[in-house]
Amino acid sequence: MPRIKEDPLAALLARPSPKAKSLIFTVYGDAISHRGGDAALGSVIALLQPLGVNERTVRTSMHRLAVEGWLQPRASGRRSDYRLTENGARRVDAAHARIYHHASRPWDRGWTLVVLGATELPAEVRQRLQRELGWLGFGRLEGGLMLHPDPDDEALRSLLGDVQLRVLVLRGAAASWVAGDLLDEVVRKGWDIARLTADYEAFLADFRPLWQALQRGGELEPERAFVARTLLMHDYRRVLLRDPMLPDELMPRHWPGAAARTLCRSLYLRVQAGAERYIESVLETAAGPAPGPAPSYLQRFGGLQSAA
Amino acid sequence: MPRIKEDPLAALLARPSPKAKSLIFTVYGDAISHRGGDAALGSVIALLQPLGVNERTVRTSMHRLAVEGWLQPRASGRRSDYRLTENGARRVDAAHARIYHHASRPWDRGWTLVVLGATELPAEVRQRLQRELGWLGFGRLEGGLMLHPDPDDEALRSLLGDVQLRVLVLRGAAASWVAGDLLDEVVRKGWDIARLTADYEAFLADFRPLWQALQRGGELEPERAFVARTLLMHDYRRVLLRDPMLPDELMPRHWPGAAARTLCRSLYLRVQAGAERYIESVLETAAGPAPGPAPSYLQRFGGLQSAA
Repeated sequence: MPRIKEDPLAALLARPSPKAKSLIFTVYGDAISHRGGDAALGSVIALLQPLGVNERTVRTSMHRLAVEGWLQPRASGRRSDYRLTENGARRVDAAHARIYHHASRPWDRGWTLVVLGATELPAEVRQRLQRELGWLGFGRLEGGLMLHPDPDDEALRSLLGDVQLRVLVLRGAAASWVAGDLLDEVVRKGWDIARLTADYEAFLADFRPLWQALQRGGELEPERAFVARTLLMHDYRRVLLRDPMLPDELMPRHWPGAAARTLCRSLYLRVQAGAERYIESVLETAAGPAPGPAPSYLQRFGGLQSAA
Repeated sequence: MPRIKEDPLAALLARPSPKAKSLIFTVYGDAISHRGGDAALGSVIALLQPLGVNERTVRTSMHRLAVEGWLQPRASGRRSDYRLTENGARRVDAAHARIYHHASRPWDRGWTLVVLGATELPAEVRQRLQRELGWLGFGRLEGGLMLHPDPDDEALRSLLGDVQLRVLVLRGAAASWVAGDLLDEVVRKGWDIARLTADYEAFLADFRPLWQALQRGGELEPERAFVARTLLMHDYRRVLLRDPMLPDELMPRHWPGAAARTLCRSLYLRVQAGAERYIESVLETAAGPAPGPAPSYLQRFGGLQSAA
């Protein structure tokens, strides 16, 4: 197939660079975890190089990630492999569930309320809970009332288990006579939907030109496909992790979240095979070439037509 | 039957007098409403006299109650009858439902939450709602979160209908993994149970001696029976209207509310017939003697053995 003449990645790469640590995390999640999970330091350096991160920065970042408990080194002769720690893998799994295996489920019109003001909690416990409930997508109303229409119950329970459950959690539904549009006001008050909308729109503005260029014909060479896929996943993950994943019924009209998901999936399907070829050519462990992709790889985004 | 030698009402009457307006309301509710509802001014004066309220005070108070919209005068020749206005009757009916026809119902372990902080409400509307929700027994947590385990839904809906329903109302249950004793803490935080306990204990301390004196034998003469019944109802109503009526499961051990109800009912049954005789001898309208008690009178407190 003919090569694309103008470089559709130029604009993406001209943006301020993402933080190297965060980009390494993306690469482990998207490019290494399904191929055994181990990577020689040299491979990580080779994978990050076309993304504009130099060797020295990769070495420093890998060291920091290990110190912080996200990566664990494993010496093998004179070389070192790095893999995600259990904590790191858990974080990647949680992100993968939202990115690759999103399934919108029907909303039962219920709400889960976490009433932090129902009992006396030490101020620092309360602040930590507010922050962590925010990561689970909970919105905040006055006075430590956090709510979500459809939260991850298991994650909620695991979070509140840490404080011996001295927090009132209720699941219920709005009274039948509550005005429908009142919930829109609750959503506007509890969540910064305007900011999230802007984030999704920025994502669309950044990646739509690449999609359009690819639609005009042509393929990216493997290294470029890998760069495209990695930047795509990196940006999408960052926006998605701030998305409270509210039911569609509660979102404003022209909400760009669904369009962003569609663009992300379409681009991923378009570039994934090329990216896998690049990964296969570069990824090694101390023991030799990394294994091929696990079968679960083919399940990403509802099913990839073929692996590398 | 032998008369009681020591006056068991002396201690009750030695207490600071209740406000005349409030006492007149009690008399209308307990002694007049079931006998046609009309009373000549002279009859009200005669009913209040043994309670220690003089004629001049009764006249002033009746006038004020009319100005405030609780009583309506009806001229009939040179005399005037007074009856409760529609508003006044509604207030009496609500009190009667709680006093005479209390039925504890099983609690479904649910909670109704009124989230005043879910939308922007003008400060004065919000303060009024907080106050009126308090009258409906709602407890208050931080940040305008009001809750009740088993509220009067009709009254709630009628209250919130006034503000075009711009208030989030949810009905739900605590998550199954919330610690049981956490609800005790919620109750302590949301309601002043200590004060309510003290009020019920004061009621018991005031009226238990009368019950004990009557148990030792003897009857009160009709006028004294009427005084006893009126003071009993007056005091009980005042405590009861501050009682949020929470399910028994949520109340502390040795909660005196049930004992107060039992004492109130027992005393009422003991003195009601004598009191009715007194009312019958005194109560008149401009048209002549007031009608006899309505059949519903016999349903008070689950059934009186006989009317006057």
